[in-house]
Amino acid sequence: LHAIVFDRQVRFEPNHPDPTPGSGEALVRVHQAGICATDLEIAKGYGGFRGVLGHEMVGTVLEGPRNWRGQRVACEINCVCRKCDMCLSGLSTHCRNRTVMGITGRDGCFADLVAVPEANLHGVPDNISDEEAVFIEPLAAAYQVIKQVPVEPRMNVAVVGSGRLGLLVAQVLAATGCRLEVIGRNPRTLDQCEKKGIMTRLADEVAPRADREVVVDCSGSPAGLELALGLVRPRGTVVLKSTHADRPAANLSPAVVNEVTILGSRCGPFPEAINALARKQIDVRPMISRTLPLEQAAQAFEAAAAPDNIKILLKINPPSGR
Amino acid sequence: LHAIVFDRQVRFEPNHPDPTPGSGEALVRVHQAGICATDLEIAKGYGGFRGVLGHEMVGTVLEGPRNWRGQRVACEINCVCRKCDMCLSGLSTHCRNRTVMGITGRDGCFADLVAVPEANLHGVPDNISDEEAVFIEPLAAAYQVIKQVPVEPRMNVAVVGSGRLGLLVAQVLAATGCRLEVIGRNPRTLDQCEKKGIMTRLADEVAPRADREVVVDCSGSPAGLELALGLVRPRGTVVLKSTHADRPAANLSPAVVNEVTILGSRCGPFPEAINALARKQIDVRPMISRTLPLEQAAQAFEAAAAPDNIKILLKINPPSGR
Repeated sequence: LHAIVFDRQVRFEPNHPDPTPGSGEALVRVHQAGICATDLEIAKGYGGFRGVLGHEMVGTVLEGPRNWRGQRVACEINCVCRKCDMCLSGLSTHCRNRTVMGITGRDGCFADLVAVPEANLHGVPDNISDEEAVFIEPLAAAYQVIKQVPVEPRMNVAVVGSGRLGLLVAQVLAATGCRLEVIGRNPRTLDQCEKKGIMTRLADEVAPRADREVVVDCSGSPAGLELALGLVRPRGTVVLKSTHADRPAANLSPAVVNEVTILGSRCGPFPEAINALARKQIDVRPMISRTLPLEQAAQAFEAAAAPDNIKILLKINPPSGR
Repeated sequence: LHAIVFDRQVRFEPNHPDPTPGSGEALVRVHQAGICATDLEIAKGYGGFRGVLGHEMVGTVLEGPRNWRGQRVACEINCVCRKCDMCLSGLSTHCRNRTVMGITGRDGCFADLVAVPEANLHGVPDNISDEEAVFIEPLAAAYQVIKQVPVEPRMNVAVVGSGRLGLLVAQVLAATGCRLEVIGRNPRTLDQCEKKGIMTRLADEVAPRADREVVVDCSGSPAGLELALGLVRPRGTVVLKSTHADRPAANLSPAVVNEVTILGSRCGPFPEAINALARKQIDVRPMISRTLPLEQAAQAFEAAAAPDNIKILLKINPPSGR
């Protein structure tokens, strides 16, 4: 197995042991995969993961139930027990016994092959390209924001951060008809919003007037969270999208004084993401900065950390027979 | 005016200028006042306040509208404009132009006399003693928790911190019939809960099993917030009650992963607090550690910061004619 492995450092491994699918699992041949901020945090030590990295992917089912074999799929990343209190109360993404692809206790998709529970497979319609399909997982996470917080037309909403996730959340929010502003530090990435008619502003130029009903923090930085807490109106909501390897020294006192709701938000609904990509409601292609082969692991992770780059894709296997 | 003033340091001031009530304001002769964590934070520089400290009090209306004169009162602390967007939407504790007694832009009640808007006055029934009435303001803040989060019988709830506010929040929550545990570092203060039949546990002995539906963080420390985030179940709620002068380096990643709601909570409803004290549903008297005269400002603040002490009261004027 060719794979990108993390074990104190990120490296390409040409002879990693092949995955062996467990009961109820399929073996998926990975076409392409995407590097996200969580991968970069894991590479800094977040969560103590060791093994094959990666959780954003598209591939073809090689082995598994007959009705799935040969199908092009995207895969949910939480592999769950269906027996614990969380699973039984309908919150299986919070399964007490879960493993998470490339994040917790289970090898990921930066490899030729990955083992995935059958229940995690989602068929990818033909009118979504491989490049686009890699975005299904992070786009689902963006849709989770509007699952958790009702956003309505004319609401004043801000997104802090114009990186990978910020740009997806911005597009999801823009479609609600809310009054949206994306606030970031990088004119190049903000420009992607401007081209879609979404208002933007540089973080340095924003006065934190505490007048937005909802602010989504996709900055991944303590300064970004503090800006979000300055932007949100009293009794408003800040949605927190980023995990950190280190402890951010953010001042939460404004959240107490203004009785703000800070809402943690993680994985989201795949069907919404697939539907939006299939209908071309969300355009992810301009976000692809570079596509690299699996062998160039170090270069790919370096590129993913560079501020001007947005999404770095890994090209792994060609889609067979397509 | 005798007053405790903060101006780079906390000091007793024997000849401070008398307060001059503005239009619609009453002059209140202060009987007793209480020192809370916010006062201690202000004394460390929180919020940049300068002037007469103090916002927990009971007194008698000396000057003001005829129907209030001579009445014993507790006073709400937010002095509001009734014109801004927050006031007009019913959120006047979040008034954009507010001053706050002894906290923001307005002298407080650690003084013989304090000026208070008439709208902020609440009559204190005769069956609430002066000592008890000082707790009306912080007890209202404790009731705010159950205004913001519905707590129901048999819910698993924890309070982190067994200080001034933690012990009040614990009593308010215990009355809901929830399954309550108070977690603190100090056996002496936890003992106050045990005496009321509320289960307690030392922070060191708690396994953060992510199984409480609601956790109220009254610890005032980053370690306390991290413990709260470890105790709360996925999709549960952490109520944040403390403001800090410094930036706490708390790790918020578990809030993202577990999609926790962190809810800032500040001032609360006076009528609930007055009603509970009048009916003896809440017993605050065991919380009074010492009562000192205004002149002993430094000693009083030092005592309030000592871990084994809970509430320090300041005795200012005797209740006239009583």
